[in-house]
Amino acid sequence: MILDIINKKANNYELTKEELETIFMGYLNDEVKDYQMSAFLMAVCINDMSDSEVFALTDIFIRSGDILDLNFIDGVKVDKHSTGGVGDKTTLIIAPLVASLGVPVIKMSGRGLGYTGGTIDKLESILGFRTALSLEEIKKQASDIGIVVTSQTKDLAPLDKKVYALRDVTATTNSIPLIASSIMSKKIAGGADKIVIDIKVGDGALVNTEEDAKRLESLLIKIGSYYQKEVRTVISNMDRPLGNSVGNRLEVLEAIDVLKGNGKGELLDLSLTLASKMVSMGKGISEEEALNLVKENLNNGKALNKFLEFVKYQGGEIEKLEIDSKVYNIKANKSGILKNIDALGVAKLSLSLGAGRTNKDDDIDYNAGVVIRKEIGDEINEGDILASLYTNIEDPKFNLEKVFEIS
Amino acid sequence: MILDIINKKANNYELTKEELETIFMGYLNDEVKDYQMSAFLMAVCINDMSDSEVFALTDIFIRSGDILDLNFIDGVKVDKHSTGGVGDKTTLIIAPLVASLGVPVIKMSGRGLGYTGGTIDKLESILGFRTALSLEEIKKQASDIGIVVTSQTKDLAPLDKKVYALRDVTATTNSIPLIASSIMSKKIAGGADKIVIDIKVGDGALVNTEEDAKRLESLLIKIGSYYQKEVRTVISNMDRPLGNSVGNRLEVLEAIDVLKGNGKGELLDLSLTLASKMVSMGKGISEEEALNLVKENLNNGKALNKFLEFVKYQGGEIEKLEIDSKVYNIKANKSGILKNIDALGVAKLSLSLGAGRTNKDDDIDYNAGVVIRKEIGDEINEGDILASLYTNIEDPKFNLEKVFEIS
Repeated sequence: MILDIINKKANNYELTKEELETIFMGYLNDEVKDYQMSAFLMAVCINDMSDSEVFALTDIFIRSGDILDLNFIDGVKVDKHSTGGVGDKTTLIIAPLVASLGVPVIKMSGRGLGYTGGTIDKLESILGFRTALSLEEIKKQASDIGIVVTSQTKDLAPLDKKVYALRDVTATTNSIPLIASSIMSKKIAGGADKIVIDIKVGDGALVNTEEDAKRLESLLIKIGSYYQKEVRTVISNMDRPLGNSVGNRLEVLEAIDVLKGNGKGELLDLSLTLASKMVSMGKGISEEEALNLVKENLNNGKALNKFLEFVKYQGGEIEKLEIDSKVYNIKANKSGILKNIDALGVAKLSLSLGAGRTNKDDDIDYNAGVVIRKEIGDEINEGDILASLYTNIEDPKFNLEKVFEIS
Repeated sequence: MILDIINKKANNYELTKEELETIFMGYLNDEVKDYQMSAFLMAVCINDMSDSEVFALTDIFIRSGDILDLNFIDGVKVDKHSTGGVGDKTTLIIAPLVASLGVPVIKMSGRGLGYTGGTIDKLESILGFRTALSLEEIKKQASDIGIVVTSQTKDLAPLDKKVYALRDVTATTNSIPLIASSIMSKKIAGGADKIVIDIKVGDGALVNTEEDAKRLESLLIKIGSYYQKEVRTVISNMDRPLGNSVGNRLEVLEAIDVLKGNGKGELLDLSLTLASKMVSMGKGISEEEALNLVKENLNNGKALNKFLEFVKYQGGEIEKLEIDSKVYNIKANKSGILKNIDALGVAKLSLSLGAGRTNKDDDIDYNAGVVIRKEIGDEINEGDILASLYTNIEDPKFNLEKVFEIS
């Protein structure tokens, strides 16, 4: 029976919802083995899925666990998701920014696995910050200050989690239908009414081409409309890191800098875009109107104050936020124009400095990371400092040409 | 690295021999996990392999274990392989037939897994028959009587065995390159000089279409020529069972009947064809000449005598070969012409009666099986006996329409 279903997908036929349920729920119950599911997932990667297969799979993922009811909070619950990028600290910026405008933000975030830390890791780099909140705590905090960022309280979409872990080790991550159903099942199980999704495209991202990004965008919107959840998307570049800092505590410091009104470039632009979409959806106003409100609160200090209030409420001691590590400056070995900064190269470097996890239970060095000191397009003279490496690892290895392209 | 190789095949690029070695030898050494290999195999099933990939894979399989040296026997060593069919007892017929003409037959055979028993199971249904011979015993027997059929003495192509077991449970059996490299690696590691391969095509076979059979044929010949081993092939039908009996001891009895000169139909024709090809290759004569010799020894009793000599030499008590089980006769529930006898249906029925293994360590009931009493094309009257079921299972279940098509 299981073999018939795998075979059907291998021969590029459309599966029924019942067939998808048999194989995926069988996998959740350990009746379908890892090696059978990975063969099936590979067939999906190569032969794709129809829209109705994707809807069915999303549904199976959602119903595999709890579904969070956020109706204890008034108003439209807008969630934001990013497909994952290097140096992406936008959640730290836009969550308080959006909340400062009266749109409630109740966000379940994850730890990072792969090259860099997740939002939860970044917040935990703040001394004392508590991320494992109970449902009671979430309710009280949401009603008191309108912003909560916590690790998952309930068992949301456990099947997606199990499938995702397998995809990670079987080269079956690059499937648009699998990516779409994974994202949407988590967001819908998490209780969101409306969802903003930042689709990263580039060498450092899950999605490598503009074409795939467009396909993913269309699929996310379709799944949303199937569940009557409005989805808006942004497609943003991930060939180069977002902002200058990569590494948990370093990224918190950069986010604070943006909240102080010192943001610039892609990080500022993307934060404004995402926040505007969230506020627009939350308040039912145009994105132009929302953008004005967002800019105002970024400049008048209200977003920063909301951030400080939020960190303090969850126990974080922001005044103790400082980097405690050795610093190694990387200098240019030739003169020229800085053509590119490779996102994946920076991510791997940051991981090697101690900022990420290779295995699920690895410890993170919150101090570790990379700060890039030059912008793409800058004129570089030999000997200029290109980046500073923060690490407690002795004599870190670094291949300049793999990260900085000067010509 | 492993993920890069899987990904490359998933994206339909040709792999180098080094890449194939990395993933397959990694699998043999347990560094590559089952779930990674099955994802890779599925990518191969869908995206296929180039000829040079198939040659490389065959080579990796061969070098994963011992290579048997049959040079202790004079003359050309001709081996025969079948891709597996329901009721296929040709080895029992042609091995003594060919040996009776002075062409040495040293055959390593396998146990069956799937619906019906393998050649070794069939021989073991003869009381006392020993199949686990040492290399010394093989040498002596080959020189004494020119025919040996034994289970594998050495660890031949262990990697193929490991991969095959995984393919069996992950719906990755239907890949022509994987089938070809599996067959050829075992035959070459087994020390054959020349090889006759019976490609079964039909609903009851590994290969379901004529097109796939042609592709497999061409690939087997190409691999042979890469190793300078002559390969000749037969493509034979497997929509219906071969001969009338399915089940281990029942098949031995039918083989003896053919050796007595009572053969007819497809079973006789195929046995003559395969034996002629082997004798032609072994003696360096034309297949027409060989066919005459083969027919002669089938009719003059020399083939039967060689069979009896061979069974006795390996300890088998042929005089005690009788079926000890209950018999249930299956009667036609309507009149008409017998249009088809479904091979897969008969195989599953035979398995359900106790003649095969579902798991590797299952016991086989050597008495169990099916004897078909009518030929395709026969006029059937309601109440005619279509088949007899031999089994020690009480009240065996049987779905007439799934096996016999009368109209």
